[in-house]
Amino acid sequence: MPGSRGIDGVRLLGRLQALGAVGRGPDGALTRLAGSDADKHGRDLVSGWMREAGLRVEVDQVGNLFGTLDGSDAAADPVMVGSHIDSVINAGIYDGCYGVLAGLEVAQRFAETGAGLARPLTIAAFTDEEGVRFQPDMLGSLVHAGGLSVEAALASVGTDGATLGDELARIGYAGAMVPGTIRPSAYLELHIEQGPVLEHEGVRIGAVENLQGISWQRVTIEGDANHAGTTPIRMRRDAGLAAARVVTFLRDHVDASNAPTVATVGTMRFEPDAINVIPSRATFTVDLRDPDEDRLKAAEAALAAYLDRLARQDGVTVSTERLARFDPVIFDEGLVRRIEQAARARGLSCRRMTSGAGHDAQMMARLAPSAMIFVPSVGGISHNPKEFTEPADLVAGAEVLMDVVAELCGG
Amino acid sequence: MPGSRGIDGVRLLGRLQALGAVGRGPDGALTRLAGSDADKHGRDLVSGWMREAGLRVEVDQVGNLFGTLDGSDAAADPVMVGSHIDSVINAGIYDGCYGVLAGLEVAQRFAETGAGLARPLTIAAFTDEEGVRFQPDMLGSLVHAGGLSVEAALASVGTDGATLGDELARIGYAGAMVPGTIRPSAYLELHIEQGPVLEHEGVRIGAVENLQGISWQRVTIEGDANHAGTTPIRMRRDAGLAAARVVTFLRDHVDASNAPTVATVGTMRFEPDAINVIPSRATFTVDLRDPDEDRLKAAEAALAAYLDRLARQDGVTVSTERLARFDPVIFDEGLVRRIEQAARARGLSCRRMTSGAGHDAQMMARLAPSAMIFVPSVGGISHNPKEFTEPADLVAGAEVLMDVVAELCGG
Repeated sequence: MPGSRGIDGVRLLGRLQALGAVGRGPDGALTRLAGSDADKHGRDLVSGWMREAGLRVEVDQVGNLFGTLDGSDAAADPVMVGSHIDSVINAGIYDGCYGVLAGLEVAQRFAETGAGLARPLTIAAFTDEEGVRFQPDMLGSLVHAGGLSVEAALASVGTDGATLGDELARIGYAGAMVPGTIRPSAYLELHIEQGPVLEHEGVRIGAVENLQGISWQRVTIEGDANHAGTTPIRMRRDAGLAAARVVTFLRDHVDASNAPTVATVGTMRFEPDAINVIPSRATFTVDLRDPDEDRLKAAEAALAAYLDRLARQDGVTVSTERLARFDPVIFDEGLVRRIEQAARARGLSCRRMTSGAGHDAQMMARLAPSAMIFVPSVGGISHNPKEFTEPADLVAGAEVLMDVVAELCGG
Repeated sequence: MPGSRGIDGVRLLGRLQALGAVGRGPDGALTRLAGSDADKHGRDLVSGWMREAGLRVEVDQVGNLFGTLDGSDAAADPVMVGSHIDSVINAGIYDGCYGVLAGLEVAQRFAETGAGLARPLTIAAFTDEEGVRFQPDMLGSLVHAGGLSVEAALASVGTDGATLGDELARIGYAGAMVPGTIRPSAYLELHIEQGPVLEHEGVRIGAVENLQGISWQRVTIEGDANHAGTTPIRMRRDAGLAAARVVTFLRDHVDASNAPTVATVGTMRFEPDAINVIPSRATFTVDLRDPDEDRLKAAEAALAAYLDRLARQDGVTVSTERLARFDPVIFDEGLVRRIEQAARARGLSCRRMTSGAGHDAQMMARLAPSAMIFVPSVGGISHNPKEFTEPADLVAGAEVLMDVVAELCGG
């Protein structure tokens, strides 16, 4: 049994494993996409644990799930601790789930130890943070922060053709509460780093002071389907070749830019997709990120200029569609300082850092002073079954969270 | 009504349209893959026309469909005229079907005019020439020529997981005849050029003297799935990027080679195929062709060397699988000369040429003296709904075929 200054690490780790077992396919791979049956089972598990911890459970119209521990000051806005439990395809068990379950553990410890908070403490699991099935990503927190209407969110069409609204109703998580009803006084998100910096430097806690801007586009290139054996090279309009040129251009561009810009082409599709037919169409996505808005715009402009040149040189038709665009975010300086102080008070090494990934905190920063706490990711690996954080680091992060929440809630 | 020296062009063109209507999807696109329901309906139509023309219909164990007009010399090996009626995805109506239906038209005219052939004339529609669903391509004629066992052919697993054997049985075209039973004294194949040469030069008939060698490989590149936002560029093992580098390498290589080598990457797949995940795996096909075996080997070697270098430089794992490999083919000089003479006798301009595409004649050349006749393709377009040959050229090609067949069959 932990002391009143600690969390129950065994319980937290056990819940991470239990939630991580939900959504395994026949091959053992974890895929818990938003609105899926696996998402329903994960939500059932988490909301059950919330009730067990004595939290009041609420679900809003876009499926955001909240569990609140009441404080003595009924009029005070709550401190909110959140993240998400949807996953990418073939995912690890920590991304998102760690933040939700650590928040739940902190609330449960406060309830068990009779800490007597002044402000309420709300634990949030936001819908569709990953954006793999429904776009945009960070959908639930974006709606909560007023950046997207409930109607638009529910009408979002998934990669499988289903709408989010239908899927939430189907799995029983289309709630009645209007999104944004719970207005936090501060928002904290604890997360695995998903990158290699903390491990590489041997630092235990990251106090996240800003977050990269994100630009997602879908690019479609159209050429001519034609016979692979009889069409002379000079007469081809090969959409697949043009797409490959864009992929290598993006790498060359970021290699040459001497900036932290990253570019990724994660999806690619050729049509008609036959061995002996020159592709008439190639469709792919481009993910560009940079902590600096001007540099992010410059990368977008360089891509647009390259696509123009490619259309002229290869005789192909190029169109682009914006899938998501979020400016870089600067987190609340006061909260970042509290995180540093809490880490120091527990004897944990700490550094300020940038979040390379998008997180719900990015959206919540529009509503309330926000910041994030990172713990090391072994090998920097995430969005991968090999995603791993040492148990001691998971517990340490949750205890820093507990200390900052205790200060913010008061009482 | 045509004279005895001509074919019934209206009947031939009408059958091309009728067969071209079989296998249209809801969007109007023609896709008649081997062993599909559409293939069954196409086979029903063609075998019905064969019977109507007085031909004896036989089907072998791999679904090759034959219609024979008996000759007066019962002991003589037949002259065979063949091609295929399966199609690529979103195909035109001429590729393959023209050769089968023109052969049928020639046989029917001989029957109608009481030409009294000495040798039998067999019209063949070979199974799965395109190789889009089941590999290798030219499967039916390869089995007929003894290059692949019946067991291996029937066990071929399609892109949809079905086996050819099951599909042939399902559609009622798993025949009893042992493949290769019909041993031709000569093989002729009439086909649209599927390339731009005849049209560009204003020539009506191509006497095809050789055929490009074909090398098909599947390449799989494995890297690490990782988060697109947090993984520094220098730490990535991006399988999608490596695949794109191969695509651009192949184009650079053939551009620099000063040879007729062509290279095509027609299929491409990324895994896990998510916007914000670096691809852990890219799978694609490479189609290399050259009329010269040494140059084809050199292109394969250049690709292999590049893949080795890529594995070292990008830290990815590369594996290749051979899907098909056919040496270039030299057709029978005597038959090629007969085609030139027949064209000249009808006042049709003619040139010798290389086939850029693979054809069943490539397999049949292992068994019997073989050659091909080409007619112009408008715009050089094939494997595309815009595939088109002028009716006058379709009729001219069929009449050249008729004259060569009449000479070969004698009587």
